[in-house]
Amino acid sequence: MFLAVHRPDPIPYALMDIVETERTRHRRLREQGSHDRADLLAILRQGFVAHLGVVVDGVPMVVPTVYGLDPGGDTVYFHGSVASRSLVQAPETTICLTVTHVDGLVLARSVFEHGVNYRSAMIYGVPRPVTDEAEKLAGLRVLTEHITPGQWDYVRQPSRKELVATALLALSTVESSVKIRTGPPTDADGPDGELPVWAGVRPVAPVWGALVADPELAAGITVPEHLRGEPHLR
Amino acid sequence: MFLAVHRPDPIPYALMDIVETERTRHRRLREQGSHDRADLLAILRQGFVAHLGVVVDGVPMVVPTVYGLDPGGDTVYFHGSVASRSLVQAPETTICLTVTHVDGLVLARSVFEHGVNYRSAMIYGVPRPVTDEAEKLAGLRVLTEHITPGQWDYVRQPSRKELVATALLALSTVESSVKIRTGPPTDADGPDGELPVWAGVRPVAPVWGALVADPELAAGITVPEHLRGEPHLR
Repeated sequence: MFLAVHRPDPIPYALMDIVETERTRHRRLREQGSHDRADLLAILRQGFVAHLGVVVDGVPMVVPTVYGLDPGGDTVYFHGSVASRSLVQAPETTICLTVTHVDGLVLARSVFEHGVNYRSAMIYGVPRPVTDEAEKLAGLRVLTEHITPGQWDYVRQPSRKELVATALLALSTVESSVKIRTGPPTDADGPDGELPVWAGVRPVAPVWGALVADPELAAGITVPEHLRGEPHLR
Repeated sequence: MFLAVHRPDPIPYALMDIVETERTRHRRLREQGSHDRADLLAILRQGFVAHLGVVVDGVPMVVPTVYGLDPGGDTVYFHGSVASRSLVQAPETTICLTVTHVDGLVLARSVFEHGVNYRSAMIYGVPRPVTDEAEKLAGLRVLTEHITPGQWDYVRQPSRKELVATALLALSTVESSVKIRTGPPTDADGPDGELPVWAGVRPVAPVWGALVADPELAAGITVPEHLRGEPHLR
């Protein structure tokens, strides 16, 4: 079920499947050919908000969190103040970090064949709390530069006090899976292909707007060069 | 921590927090004033992809899934073929369904004050498998019409066989929480306000593209009226 390019089962709007033997079916992407891993890294590089799943008192909790991928693609850094408290307190807890890009609605000839074009990456692992000050600084730099390249050297970097107050977690990307759906609906060849129904895809993509200055920005401060281009992010 | 409008703690890129007493702090939105509930419903109505968290063998699993909100706002319907298998097999399992809209990057004067403007809704509950055929049909209609109004009556509706093959789950929106961050960075009033650093927000929003017809679409089929407008969805 964990293929790089996957056609979902013909269930309306089916996205990713939860299979009974889910973790055993995961591929270790590092041990595979480069193709799946390239898909994984492309998905992670294009995004900056993941949905983090943790189990708290037996109950799943899914929270959005920003993340940064180290340039080599081996480690995702994320945090979120109190967010990581439960993880720091239970350091051997496996989590699931999922990044999803929605690319379009698949409008088919029957309800049953409707779906969504998307690319999604799931990473499982036991996150490692980053406690060393130098490594924490480096990890925060990865996070910052992942989201806004050039920003780390432009703004004020964290003080020692701020570093101490920041809980940063490192997660290996080794145990990951990727699912992708692309293209038109697939019911043209079946009996529904005869129906007089329009079918196709309605694409969607995030678009970045013009920068909005802080109303309290001091006069004379202009937008720096590194903020002028279009972000690579979704 | 679960306020309708919440300023995250001043931790870089902090989004939602996991608090130790998380579930106990949830408000039952139905029992509150209309304001929080209006935020919840607005977030749910604007989205169509949620991140579903389930615990499988003690491990959290976060999968993207489409959903539909019933017009009254009381129930979210979702499914995903095999996705619901583990839920159907363990019908008393609490899940967490999270819907997040990312609205912008908050570019502050220090790394520490960076953040994200976002609106996120979390729903906890024990989903109810919808087994009655009429209710399943009604739920799929809610799902379909939530995503593409007008589509249910336009395309071929599910056959009995397709209905049987579709696992649909209903989740009450009663136990929900909403978190929202809006506006510029908040460090102008502190010592960093003196820094010669540009600060503000880089907005982002999903934009729908022009419809792309199925290459195998039969000649003479035109786009129906209900697909011509801009979707209300994010």
